[in-house]
Amino acid sequence: MVEDQKKYLLTAKKAEDITEWYTQVIINSEFVDYSAVSGMMVFRPDSYFAWNTIKEATDKMFKDVGVQDVYFPLLIPKRLLEKEQQHVKGFSPEVAWITHAGDSELSERLAVRPTSEAIMYDSFSKWIRSWRDLPIKYNIWASVVRWEFKHPTPLLRNREFLWNEGHSVFATLEEAEAERDVILGIYEKILHDYLALPGIKGMKTDNEKFAGAMASYSIEHLMPDGWALQGPDHHSDGQNFAKAFDIKFIDKDGNKKYVYQNTYAITTRELGAMILTHGDDKGLVLPPKLARIQLVIVPIYNNSNKEEVLQYSKSLYNSIKGQFRVYLDDRDEYSPGWKYNEWEMKGVPVRLEVGKRELESKSAIAVRRDTGKKETVSISRLGDELSTLMEDIHSKLYEKASDFLKSHTFTAKDYSELKKFVGEGIVQAPWCGSGECEEKIKTETGAKITNLPSGLQDGAKGEKCVYCGKEAKHIANFARSY
Amino acid sequence: MVEDQKKYLLTAKKAEDITEWYTQVIINSEFVDYSAVSGMMVFRPDSYFAWNTIKEATDKMFKDVGVQDVYFPLLIPKRLLEKEQQHVKGFSPEVAWITHAGDSELSERLAVRPTSEAIMYDSFSKWIRSWRDLPIKYNIWASVVRWEFKHPTPLLRNREFLWNEGHSVFATLEEAEAERDVILGIYEKILHDYLALPGIKGMKTDNEKFAGAMASYSIEHLMPDGWALQGPDHHSDGQNFAKAFDIKFIDKDGNKKYVYQNTYAITTRELGAMILTHGDDKGLVLPPKLARIQLVIVPIYNNSNKEEVLQYSKSLYNSIKGQFRVYLDDRDEYSPGWKYNEWEMKGVPVRLEVGKRELESKSAIAVRRDTGKKETVSISRLGDELSTLMEDIHSKLYEKASDFLKSHTFTAKDYSELKKFVGEGIVQAPWCGSGECEEKIKTETGAKITNLPSGLQDGAKGEKCVYCGKEAKHIANFARSY
Repeated sequence: MVEDQKKYLLTAKKAEDITEWYTQVIINSEFVDYSAVSGMMVFRPDSYFAWNTIKEATDKMFKDVGVQDVYFPLLIPKRLLEKEQQHVKGFSPEVAWITHAGDSELSERLAVRPTSEAIMYDSFSKWIRSWRDLPIKYNIWASVVRWEFKHPTPLLRNREFLWNEGHSVFATLEEAEAERDVILGIYEKILHDYLALPGIKGMKTDNEKFAGAMASYSIEHLMPDGWALQGPDHHSDGQNFAKAFDIKFIDKDGNKKYVYQNTYAITTRELGAMILTHGDDKGLVLPPKLARIQLVIVPIYNNSNKEEVLQYSKSLYNSIKGQFRVYLDDRDEYSPGWKYNEWEMKGVPVRLEVGKRELESKSAIAVRRDTGKKETVSISRLGDELSTLMEDIHSKLYEKASDFLKSHTFTAKDYSELKKFVGEGIVQAPWCGSGECEEKIKTETGAKITNLPSGLQDGAKGEKCVYCGKEAKHIANFARSY
Repeated sequence: MVEDQKKYLLTAKKAEDITEWYTQVIINSEFVDYSAVSGMMVFRPDSYFAWNTIKEATDKMFKDVGVQDVYFPLLIPKRLLEKEQQHVKGFSPEVAWITHAGDSELSERLAVRPTSEAIMYDSFSKWIRSWRDLPIKYNIWASVVRWEFKHPTPLLRNREFLWNEGHSVFATLEEAEAERDVILGIYEKILHDYLALPGIKGMKTDNEKFAGAMASYSIEHLMPDGWALQGPDHHSDGQNFAKAFDIKFIDKDGNKKYVYQNTYAITTRELGAMILTHGDDKGLVLPPKLARIQLVIVPIYNNSNKEEVLQYSKSLYNSIKGQFRVYLDDRDEYSPGWKYNEWEMKGVPVRLEVGKRELESKSAIAVRRDTGKKETVSISRLGDELSTLMEDIHSKLYEKASDFLKSHTFTAKDYSELKKFVGEGIVQAPWCGSGECEEKIKTETGAKITNLPSGLQDGAKGEKCVYCGKEAKHIANFARSY
């Protein structure tokens, strides 16, 4: 039992060593685990529940805007992957290759899906004939394999991760461009409503855009250590892939034209962002909608009142189990204090403590995970009070993260200010648009341009590039990035 | 347009050449498609919708009996796959092997998941310490790759398919055995309620059981050509894998013991069974719950009444769209007859025909896909009538399939009768239990033992084996099998 107890304790402090803290918290909370394959992880019930909830909520919003789910093969022939030059250049260093089936060597290598453009667009080129076949708005929920050679970290940088992969095909550039705000709006809503995570929306630079895209847009998060982490994205492929895969249609005017395409994704990386943002020195802090167990009831009894306290706990359990995902922790072999540690480590949003006194006053003590604040709740209002509490926990998590983002977004008037603020958070500065300046700033400060924040671009007018002093074209967000 | 129309026509007849008919119907209906990878297929929106509906309904029933979803890596190190001897023997001839990542050769080959025992049980052996950690009831929804060298057929025999993979761990054999009827009961309900498919439940023979299992149980379907097709299954692994992967726990009595394990699965093959069973010479016939579009409204108009008929159709659409998945086919460039062909091919359960006469009498003509029967429905009762119609279509599909199964299940008194009935359907005959008799019957007749039907086994008492004449131990179902 002593060994058991240790697994719910953290030795690292988040503020002192966030890397070590992160590793301890995700493993000790039993949220995820390492696997026998280096760089690939196991989604245990709590992490899979959170991801599946995100998946179902996102999927519903996709369907509301006309997106249909499909499934394409896991494996992609080498010759297809090589059709678009930038695409293959971006992905081939990370591809896991299948060369044999059983004892036979294959005549052509097959890639395990690192992304599905190549296999999907081969079908699109067969399916699309006329304007009547457009638009196509398809999505797959799948796992992808990218053989990262950098040090892998569960959820944040893995050799396999789960994602949605949206692929749209339009007759015109206007329709294609109009999709971007719809999809990024859905992602923002998921981040806000489910993960309690704020983000900064904007265009990626040419250096940082998706391999094969004309333009990429991302939502960027800021982590508590002042480093940025890229969230969901949407890519405008223009006619790049259409030309490489020969995807043409006959328009209403009788002419053959190439289509316009977009892709977009949200990944299991968001769970890593959620943990880094909300977690504390006691463990995970889960937003209530993503918690597999939202509420744990811990009965506190001694030999003289055990039966009545357990019976009272059971009645509370029955009264709220239809409203919340609740677990009655009536395990006799653990002390209440031990249970508190375990459920705090696992990030369960609310704990109900129930003892003899609560039984007598027909109440329960509700302890919220995010602040540790306790309040006594009468059982006559239990369901309503807990609902309000859950909503408040979610809002406060978002608010706290949002306040942090605001207080750690800096404006740099010159390069020395930029260097001063880098490492503290996001640094906004005017930029001339040249990849050379971007590269040099990255080499000298370790900060890349996370994106060019939407809504701030007018501010570039009349400004000078923070590096070269030439006329600024953009306001860029600089940060060190996960 | 002429080319377009052809794609919704079948040249093969189901009764004459079911193989060719099947291929035409699944491809021409745009249900699935071939892909650039030989033996791997694309799930287009209609097939993915059907599978996802099965998946969600099954998952909900799993959760109700305490099963939790997880996710394990797609790739499995060779050394893990080799831990259980029968298991590796069964799967290694079909494994797709990854040997390279980017330009680097891997130090150990990795298998693309053909099934997840090896990767999961490696984790289970770490996680399970005491009786308090049991039972474990985990499930993953995933794709698996098995490199079939036989001729692949979309949905029925593919190099990649989608499935649920349930993995349970118990402290005792009794608990493990008690799970079988629960899970097979869920599968039977899914087959009945969603796919409208009957089946025969029973134990597999040792020759036919899962590689590594002590005993396998299956639900077997009978297809219209008299061939059987294996449906969902449940395997009792006993302590086989526990010993190979060293999965032990300390029981309440303080002793270290090996666990007992089960696995179970339902796959996308069921969609193939559904099509073979319900489809006809006009195309797919989808059970209403699995149809992405349940109802299509086809307006019939000429230049003089176009606007009013379209407006009336739109009002019908609006009145029922909250109740059904409905599509208003107001495409001007296709004739009503062309649309009928298309939606019949795609298996949409009900078509509503709406013209000037229906507008005037405030009605619509409902045409059911399964029988082609038409009835005039007043719009005042439209929602209710359509609900009843959908339920009736589902029941009739199940009934028809069930009648076929009954009328094509034969009892063979002797070997000559067995030989006579094989090819017509399922043949029930007494069997001594020897693998040798089973093999010889298979070689001589092409029929294998699909399973030993539950509930009929008492009938073996006093009977003689249909092949060797020795005392019968079982009543076996013989059939040629997909």
